[in-house]
Amino acid sequence: MASIDANPASGTRDFLPDDVGRRERAFDTIRSAFRSHGFDPLDTPAFERLEVLTGKYGEEGDQLIFKILRRGEHEASGEADLALRYDLTVPLARVVARYGSQLPMPFKRYHIAPVWRADRPGKGRYREFFQCDLDTVGSDSLVADASTIVAVADVLDRLGLSGFRVQLNSRRALAGLIEAYGIPGELESDALVALDKLDKIGAEGVARELTERGVATDAVEHLVADLGDDDLEGRVRERLAGNEAGRAGLAEVDEVLTLAGKLPGGSVGYAPVLARGLSYYTGPVFEVVHDDLAVTIAAGGRYDGLVGMFQGQDVPATGGSLGIERILLLLEQAAAGQVSAGADVLVTTMDDDGRADALALAGRLRTEGLRVDLYAGRGKLGKQLKYADRRGIPLAVIRGADERAAGTVAVKDLGSGEQATVDETALAEHLLRALGR
Amino acid sequence: MASIDANPASGTRDFLPDDVGRRERAFDTIRSAFRSHGFDPLDTPAFERLEVLTGKYGEEGDQLIFKILRRGEHEASGEADLALRYDLTVPLARVVARYGSQLPMPFKRYHIAPVWRADRPGKGRYREFFQCDLDTVGSDSLVADASTIVAVADVLDRLGLSGFRVQLNSRRALAGLIEAYGIPGELESDALVALDKLDKIGAEGVARELTERGVATDAVEHLVADLGDDDLEGRVRERLAGNEAGRAGLAEVDEVLTLAGKLPGGSVGYAPVLARGLSYYTGPVFEVVHDDLAVTIAAGGRYDGLVGMFQGQDVPATGGSLGIERILLLLEQAAAGQVSAGADVLVTTMDDDGRADALALAGRLRTEGLRVDLYAGRGKLGKQLKYADRRGIPLAVIRGADERAAGTVAVKDLGSGEQATVDETALAEHLLRALGR
Repeated sequence: MASIDANPASGTRDFLPDDVGRRERAFDTIRSAFRSHGFDPLDTPAFERLEVLTGKYGEEGDQLIFKILRRGEHEASGEADLALRYDLTVPLARVVARYGSQLPMPFKRYHIAPVWRADRPGKGRYREFFQCDLDTVGSDSLVADASTIVAVADVLDRLGLSGFRVQLNSRRALAGLIEAYGIPGELESDALVALDKLDKIGAEGVARELTERGVATDAVEHLVADLGDDDLEGRVRERLAGNEAGRAGLAEVDEVLTLAGKLPGGSVGYAPVLARGLSYYTGPVFEVVHDDLAVTIAAGGRYDGLVGMFQGQDVPATGGSLGIERILLLLEQAAAGQVSAGADVLVTTMDDDGRADALALAGRLRTEGLRVDLYAGRGKLGKQLKYADRRGIPLAVIRGADERAAGTVAVKDLGSGEQATVDETALAEHLLRALGR
Repeated sequence: MASIDANPASGTRDFLPDDVGRRERAFDTIRSAFRSHGFDPLDTPAFERLEVLTGKYGEEGDQLIFKILRRGEHEASGEADLALRYDLTVPLARVVARYGSQLPMPFKRYHIAPVWRADRPGKGRYREFFQCDLDTVGSDSLVADASTIVAVADVLDRLGLSGFRVQLNSRRALAGLIEAYGIPGELESDALVALDKLDKIGAEGVARELTERGVATDAVEHLVADLGDDDLEGRVRERLAGNEAGRAGLAEVDEVLTLAGKLPGGSVGYAPVLARGLSYYTGPVFEVVHDDLAVTIAAGGRYDGLVGMFQGQDVPATGGSLGIERILLLLEQAAAGQVSAGADVLVTTMDDDGRADALALAGRLRTEGLRVDLYAGRGKLGKQLKYADRRGIPLAVIRGADERAAGTVAVKDLGSGEQATVDETALAEHLLRALGR
C-alpha cells in the first residue's frame, strides 16, 4: 500500500489550487461572453452507450475511445458497453435527436467540458482535456455563421488575446476553385487535403503532393502560379467568377464578411486556400490565428450533415471550437510566477483561550465581504505567517490576550512587514483600505 | 443508424440549458462561500489507475467501480487498467501523497466534481452524480473541525436553506458511552451501526438489533431507558462523566460548540447518539438536517486514518460533504416553472438588407452590458417572437427598412405586448430601464 504510485494516470493532470483558479476564471469569462451572445449552456454525461460513439470518428478515432467494462456477472466477458465522451459534437447530435421539439430552434448552445482520448501522451497532448464548443443547430442562415465568428472574437478579446486574425473561406468556394483548375470531382478531397498543408509544406510541397495524388500537370502548374501571385486573392476571385460553385461560394464568403463587420479585438478576412482538413464541413469555414502565437486558437465552420446523424436526415448546423487547452497554456505562461491570493486576510490563532474569539472575528470580517482564512493548525506565529505568505495572503490579523482585553487587533502587512494596532470596530475598514478597495 | 437510442446511458442525465444554469449558479455560490473561508479549489482526473481505487471502498464498493478496458493490442485481454473516480477522498489522499511538500499545510481544499458508481439506478440515485467536499488536511486542531461546520453553515445559508440544524457528536464520546453501558469493545462498531438507525427504527428497534448482535440484556435496557428519557443529553452527559473516553469526547464536543459559536442561518447542538455509520471517523462527527426536508443535507467529521493511506502513516484530516444532488433537487423544486432568461433582448432579423445592421446593433448593445441574442434562423416576425418567448427573453428589438431610414428602433415588451419606437441613440438606455437596471 505504501509503495503505490501517487501520480495521476498517464496523460492526465492534477490541478492544484492556482491552476484551478486560473482555469475557472477563464471559464467564467468564456461563459459570460457566450451568454452575452445568447448561447445557452448544455451538459451531457461523461460516458455514452458504446454504440452512440463507435463508427463516428473513423477507424483511427475508434481506436482512441476509452471503453468501460461491463459490470457484475458480465465483467468476466471482457466486453465494454459504455465509453467515455470523445468530443462534444456527437453528444450534441444525440441531444438534438432526443429533445428536438423541447429545444428552442435555432438551438444555440455552448459546452465546456473534458473529453477523453487514448492518444499517446506527449508535450501538450493529454488523454483528458477540455473542449469548448459553441454551435447553432437548425439554421441555414449565414447570420448563424457570422454570429459564431463574432462570439468567438468577443471571447478571445475578453481573454486578453486581442490582435488575432480570423481567416474565412467556404467549402463551396473551394469546390469552385478545384473545378476552375480542371481537377476532376473525384480528386476534390485529395486536393483539399494537400492545399490544407500549404502553411507547413509550401507551394512546392503542395504541387508535389497533388501530382502524387494524380492531379494533371497543367492544373498543378496553374495552382502553383496562383499561390505565388502577389495578389492571390485577386487571382482566385477571377477564377471563381468562372463557374457557378465558385460564384456561390464567393458570395457566401462576402456575405459573412459583411455580416461579421468589424470584430472586437481582431480582424476577419478572406483566406482563399484555407481548407480545414475535416471532411464534414459543407459551407463557410474559419480558423483564428495570432501572429505572436503561431498556433490556431479557434476554428469552425458549417457542417449540415453531422448533427442529424441519429435522425437519419440533414440538420443544418454551424459552430466553432476554441483551442481551450492552448489558450489556457498561454494564460498560464502570462501569469507565470504569480500566486493568486488564497484569501484577503489570515486570522491567526495564537492561544487556546483566543480560538473562539478568532473564529468569531473571522466570521464578522466575512460579513464585510472579505475572504478570510483562519489558521487551522497549531503552530507559532512565524509558522502561521509563513503559511499566509505561501498562499499569497497579503494581510494577517494577530490578536493575543492583551489585544482582546484592550479591544484592539494587530494587523500585519506581509508585503512591507509593517504592523499596525487597530481598534476592533475599525478593523474591516482598515483591511479594506489596505487591500485598496 | 436512424434507429439508435438517443437517451443518455442508464443512470446518467443530460442537463438542458435551464438545468445547467441553475446548477452553475449554485456551484458559483458554493465556490464563492468556500473561498471566503480560505478553502482552495482542487481538481483531479476523472479516472485513476485501477490499483489506486481498488480495495478502498470495501467489497461492495469495489463492485460498483466503473473499470476502463485496456486499449489497442491489450483490449482483447478483457482486462481493465483504469477506473472512474468513485469519490473525492481517495484522489485527495493521492494528491497529498504526491504533492505534500508543495501544498500549504494545513491544506484546506474544496472539490466539486462528478463521481461515478455502477449502482442500480433509481429515483434520485444516479450513476453519475456530483460530490461537493471540503477538507482540512494536516491539522489535529479542533479549530479545523469547527471551521468546517462554520463554512458548511455559511454555504447552506447563502443557498437559501436557512433553518437547518447541525447535529454534533464525537466518536470518542460514543466510545465512552459504549463503555459506560458495559458493552464490550469488540461489539463497539456493531453497537454504533445499530444506534445509527435510531431515527429509522426507533428505540425498540435499536434494542432488538443490539440484542441480536450479542449485547447483554442489562446494557440494552439501560440504553433504551436513556433513549426514552426526556433529558437524553443530561443522562448521557452523566454517564460520560464516568470514564476517561467519555470525558475526553465530551470536552471535544463542547470545545467545537464553543468554537463554532453562533452559526449563520442555523443552529448547532450536541446529538448524544448520532453515530454516522462510516467506520473511518476518529473524532468529531456531524450531520446537518432541516426540519422541512427530512433529509441529511450535509455531513462530515474527523478521519485521521484515511488521507495517509498512500503514505502508510496517519495524516490528520477533517472535513465535510454537502448532499449536493439533494440540494440541487430542492433548489430545482423551488424554481419549478421559472424559465431563466436566455438573454435580455432578442434582436430580430427581418430582411436580407437589414441583417448586417442587426448584427452591428447587437454588438453595440453588448458593449453596454446587455446579453443580446440575435435570431439566427429565417422566419417571420411571429416565429421570432415565439422563439424569444420560449427562451424567456423579455424584450425584442425590431428594425425594418423604415426604422433604419429614420434612425429609430421598435422595442417590443413581450410580457405586456406593448411596443415603443425609440431613437437609435437612446436604445440601450431604454432597454436597461425596461429591464429595471
